[in-house]
Amino acid sequence: MSKVRRIGVLTGGGDAPGLNAVIRAVVKSSYNYGIECLGLENSFDGLLETNRHTVLTPRNVTGILRVGGTILGTVNRGNPFLKPIDTSDGPKDYAERCMEMFHKLQIDGIVVIGGDGTLSIAHEFNKKGMPIIGVPKTIDNDIVGTTNCFGFDTAVAFATDAIDRLHTTAQAHQRVMVVEVMGRYAGWIALYSGVAGGADVIMVPEIPYDIDIVAQRIKERDSFGAKFSIVVVAEGAVPRGGKVSLVKAADGGYVERLGGVGHRVAAELEKLTGKETRTVVLGHLQRGGSPTSFDRMLATRFGAMAVELLVKGESDRMVAFHPPEIGSIPLADVGGKMRLVPADGDVVRTAKSLGISFGDE
Amino acid sequence: MSKVRRIGVLTGGGDAPGLNAVIRAVVKSSYNYGIECLGLENSFDGLLETNRHTVLTPRNVTGILRVGGTILGTVNRGNPFLKPIDTSDGPKDYAERCMEMFHKLQIDGIVVIGGDGTLSIAHEFNKKGMPIIGVPKTIDNDIVGTTNCFGFDTAVAFATDAIDRLHTTAQAHQRVMVVEVMGRYAGWIALYSGVAGGADVIMVPEIPYDIDIVAQRIKERDSFGAKFSIVVVAEGAVPRGGKVSLVKAADGGYVERLGGVGHRVAAELEKLTGKETRTVVLGHLQRGGSPTSFDRMLATRFGAMAVELLVKGESDRMVAFHPPEIGSIPLADVGGKMRLVPADGDVVRTAKSLGISFGDE
Amino acid sequence: MSKVRRIGVLTGGGDAPGLNAVIRAVVKSSYNYGIECLGLENSFDGLLETNRHTVLTPRNVTGILRVGGTILGTVNRGNPFLKPIDTSDGPKDYAERCMEMFHKLQIDGIVVIGGDGTLSIAHEFNKKGMPIIGVPKTIDNDIVGTTNCFGFDTAVAFATDAIDRLHTTAQAHQRVMVVEVMGRYAGWIALYSGVAGGADVIMVPEIPYDIDIVAQRIKERDSFGAKFSIVVVAEGAVPRGGKVSLVKAADGGYVERLGGVGHRVAAELEKLTGKETRTVVLGHLQRGGSPTSFDRMLATRFGAMAVELLVKGESDRMVAFHPPEIGSIPLADVGGKMRLVPADGDVVRTAKSLGISFGDE
Amino acid sequence: MSKVRRIGVLTGGGDAPGLNAVIRAVVKSSYNYGIECLGLENSFDGLLETNRHTVLTPRNVTGILRVGGTILGTVNRGNPFLKPIDTSDGPKDYAERCMEMFHKLQIDGIVVIGGDGTLSIAHEFNKKGMPIIGVPKTIDNDIVGTTNCFGFDTAVAFATDAIDRLHTTAQAHQRVMVVEVMGRYAGWIALYSGVAGGADVIMVPEIPYDIDIVAQRIKERDSFGAKFSIVVVAEGAVPRGGKVSLVKAADGGYVERLGGVGHRVAAELEKLTGKETRTVVLGHLQRGGSPTSFDRMLATRFGAMAVELLVKGESDRMVAFHPPEIGSIPLADVGGKMRLVPADGDVVRTAKSLGISFGDE
Repeated sequence: MSKVRRIGVLTGGGDAPGLNAVIRAVVKSSYNYGIECLGLENSFDGLLETNRHTVLTPRNVTGILRVGGTILGTVNRGNPFLKPIDTSDGPKDYAERCMEMFHKLQIDGIVVIGGDGTLSIAHEFNKKGMPIIGVPKTIDNDIVGTTNCFGFDTAVAFATDAIDRLHTTAQAHQRVMVVEVMGRYAGWIALYSGVAGGADVIMVPEIPYDIDIVAQRIKERDSFGAKFSIVVVAEGAVPRGGKVSLVKAADGGYVERLGGVGHRVAAELEKLTGKETRTVVLGHLQRGGSPTSFDRMLATRFGAMAVELLVKGESDRMVAFHPPEIGSIPLADVGGKMRLVPADGDVVRTAKSLGISFGDE
Repeated sequence: MSKVRRIGVLTGGGDAPGLNAVIRAVVKSSYNYGIECLGLENSFDGLLETNRHTVLTPRNVTGILRVGGTILGTVNRGNPFLKPIDTSDGPKDYAERCMEMFHKLQIDGIVVIGGDGTLSIAHEFNKKGMPIIGVPKTIDNDIVGTTNCFGFDTAVAFATDAIDRLHTTAQAHQRVMVVEVMGRYAGWIALYSGVAGGADVIMVPEIPYDIDIVAQRIKERDSFGAKFSIVVVAEGAVPRGGKVSLVKAADGGYVERLGGVGHRVAAELEKLTGKETRTVVLGHLQRGGSPTSFDRMLATRFGAMAVELLVKGESDRMVAFHPPEIGSIPLADVGGKMRLVPADGDVVRTAKSLGISFGDE
Repeated sequence: MSKVRRIGVLTGGGDAPGLNAVIRAVVKSSYNYGIECLGLENSFDGLLETNRHTVLTPRNVTGILRVGGTILGTVNRGNPFLKPIDTSDGPKDYAERCMEMFHKLQIDGIVVIGGDGTLSIAHEFNKKGMPIIGVPKTIDNDIVGTTNCFGFDTAVAFATDAIDRLHTTAQAHQRVMVVEVMGRYAGWIALYSGVAGGADVIMVPEIPYDIDIVAQRIKERDSFGAKFSIVVVAEGAVPRGGKVSLVKAADGGYVERLGGVGHRVAAELEKLTGKETRTVVLGHLQRGGSPTSFDRMLATRFGAMAVELLVKGESDRMVAFHPPEIGSIPLADVGGKMRLVPADGDVVRTAKSLGISFGDE
Repeated sequence: MSKVRRIGVLTGGGDAPGLNAVIRAVVKSSYNYGIECLGLENSFDGLLETNRHTVLTPRNVTGILRVGGTILGTVNRGNPFLKPIDTSDGPKDYAERCMEMFHKLQIDGIVVIGGDGTLSIAHEFNKKGMPIIGVPKTIDNDIVGTTNCFGFDTAVAFATDAIDRLHTTAQAHQRVMVVEVMGRYAGWIALYSGVAGGADVIMVPEIPYDIDIVAQRIKERDSFGAKFSIVVVAEGAVPRGGKVSLVKAADGGYVERLGGVGHRVAAELEKLTGKETRTVVLGHLQRGGSPTSFDRMLATRFGAMAVELLVKGESDRMVAFHPPEIGSIPLADVGGKMRLVPADGDVVRTAKSLGISFGDE
């Protein structure tokens, strides 16, 4: 393999706590290898214009380990493979332009930190000859091939703290509190924060619920003397028998405004149980804030491993957590798949053995 | 004055962090005076039935200092002066029944921890001969005659932390984030968390806003290079020229479900600025959780002072914070009034001097 | 296998966040199996006297999920196999007495939550016919056969937060801050909090340090413009070439008073670098507080699995985290061993690639 | 008064959470007045050399509101009035040189953020014709004329959280935990965190303690069934009858290393009560971290008021919190005095009425 002299790093997709920690690890690690590191702004847009990259040294990343967000930005024009662009040489697609800039900047490889979508684009670029190592990023923890993505632990920690707060107020008022957490397709945040927060009901996309069963569980608690209940609902939870249409999939940005699953479930439960019910939608609070120590460690190990793989001449792979080791898998194995909560897995079974209802039995 | 031998303590109204800290102080303080302390459950309902009171000793309040909620409960049948009740002696109102129980239990005075409504009821009971010292409780900090109510600092701390979290995600995505906080009539939480969290716009009930001015401020920031903005909105914020009807006043419990001011303001700002806008409604998260050290200290001092006043033979007064002292004011001065944010006060002026817009100029 | 009707649960050894979460899971899970659960107080002492056990139901464990410490206590008379006791039937050892009580109470199995020492005792009791499932507990994370023990993540989170706090003050004063963390034999807390907190130097028992190399690293940073440094030291860190005698092993309780490794290292560094140096010893702060969501989940899964194993008729095993699954290993494989930080493992290599010095090269 | 066109801002003395919040407010507020703001580095050293000042605009202070430490640094050569300096014009003292630079830079006034010592120097400079407004900064909250200094609430919040953590571990192990907090001369942190954290004993410099009385209190708790105790000790607490010599006053930097009052008190209590006793010294952890919302608000108001006073042509004054207003007092009234805990004040009386011992009766 030829020697690696210059690498790039970029972040794509939604915000997640730990992005800066990965960037910092990539910068510090490449610095110690004697490799120059270019920060590319706003995902692959950083390869579209001449002035959207900067050399990053350890000094540039001082203090960012504990700061949420990303110093490189994520706002971009969308998938470069789907966008035509007019140039003086006639129309090109963005991706072609990115390849040109990639060669012009004499970059030997890129660390791409992103979710499912960004990693799929990364795989396409690999095919075109841009060596890329992916770093999996998703609050929802639903990327395949890795037990954990950074950001998930922080989101769960925040949601758990929120459930703690709602417990005391639910108890004082003898109410049902419905907490809507992230998870459009996978219920990991709901499952983990629900168990860690001591919820009574957890509703995840993978286990369609019967609202009558949920209401029954709340009424049982009432008769047992526990006059309040905590219900954790993933935003993608669906009733048995079919998707509801209230959450407009084509209009993602407005889901939260028009009232999502949390408000709907609360209204149904209030009607069925006769108990005062309140909803809290955690929303973007789950994406922000300083990463937990767990996520900082994971993000740091991911970043360092990504550089190590590039140095070894590897590409088209995603770093992955195979506890206690950091490993890697082919990027080709990642796209279009999703790691779901197994409905009969041991965490769900544990939750059920504690008396937590998933609304399914 | 005759010697005080037995007192009661009860909590009424909405949950607030620090309720348990007041109860603990009342119990420990009365214990050290050699006074027996009865915990009355669920506000004045604790005087309606024979079995809704318990003797509380220091052992009963071990560990509750740092726990949110109230060990005495707050769920009750409503204002005892407005409720008739059938008894074997014919109809009575609840208040009469409470007085009977009060005498039967040989209580010398009661510490009533509650908001505006509960304290007004307390004042009525005082007139009937039940010696009461009130302790002001409101997240919103809008009770007159005291610079601070316990619970407020905790609510502001949580809201400030939420704004911190949203900052990094707003910045990464170049978005406008609208944070709806509590404050139906008074904007203290919005004002304090907005300044402490570094908000760009703060909207409070006391200063009607012009949405165009708010949008203008956001666009100015954009052109200045600050591509994101944080807007803190009190739930009672209103546009200049009149109340909007979207927030159904007659149906308080559903305000949050149907979409309150936060979602409405966000929709308007997205339209006016063309920027991606997201909303987070903090809701009940502001009521729960462990009280801050500030609120624990304030609650403890309030509780101890309430007992001291009863011991001195005083009644019909509310303890109050007149920093750095704890004082008291007549309960008669409290009801039906509200401590509002002065639109030209020095905190608002400070905020404006920092460049924060209130949407009014 | 015969049906399990009654189990016991006890906690032994030092405090760790998550003990109550395990107890809660054991109680709730056994309740749902229709098994009665006895809480045994103060480790195996709960089997020495007739009145040191209580039936625990879900109601008894309400709210303890988020509370540090253990509702069962841990203070005990020591290893029951080493203590003779006089009885009316002549001298016995405690262990024999425990076996009698075990039979008398008609317990079918016990969940023993404890560290290396307690689990070794558990193994001995298994040999005598008391079916036990162990749950590994140690802040230090050094029990073999499991990637994680509950309590560790909470300790690391606290230490990381402490390092965050010291960063700003170190920077403002251009100081060297030495943070002493737990880890007498294994450096996991130092390693994880050091990486997550962005330390410049990490000193662990497994990698003997050369103080001159450490001083050199600090001076390099100085000349580079980074006028402050953060040094994380495990309490068991030792200089190359031999153990120092300052930390009196035979007198554990006084180690902290006489000045441990943190103060010593700080004094040496101040002399060698000429920079103002300060020490903070985190000590018992690492043991307390509410467990993180990670530890609550792990503790809950451990507790539920322990009951499941007893129900299945298994014994003499320890539950273990084999991510993402909970498994188990023979108790016989646990005692007298220790899971150490591999000096050439990938976490240490990652840390070194970021420029963190371990004082060894 | 002549128009203010350019002001300076500097920070002196020990680190305190909120320094950056004051700087930010000064910068933003002066910007909105159309005043240029110079950041002077490392206290008055920023006026000694030509290159130690920078123009600060709102952009320079983005994001620092929530960050501990000070972007201006505090490390300096000491009191400029006590230091002679050789110049090409012969020897001068630093102060004269500072005055020259002050005039050369055409600064109209300076905001000086510092403690007792820095504010005394500020007063001297005022006499020489440098208009200064002081902002009181001390963790210990012992500056006269203001009910609160920023940083204090954050320190108390941290200490309270630490006491919370130690409670559960003290309870599990039935130990006495001694927590040493800051406060060499004034016991505010000990008093406030002790009450807020639910301590059993509080020892402050203002109330000399009798160790036998403290031990007695612990033994009483024991016999009452509360087998653990929490003792909060200010670093300046002294026994009745005389200062102890163990804390070497002449060697401040080493106090923490050689073992301060916390370790000494713990040793004495272990001997007197026979109970296992542990010590935690919070030390520098109290100075760092993100300021609480309370301190951010106070710091922001202080900064804005300081600029407002300069604009109004005032000088030689210190801003002060006279709740709920921000006011100011003459700098001449500040130096050489100290705001102590009144031994018979209402907070101490409240604490005593709850059963907290101060070791004096």
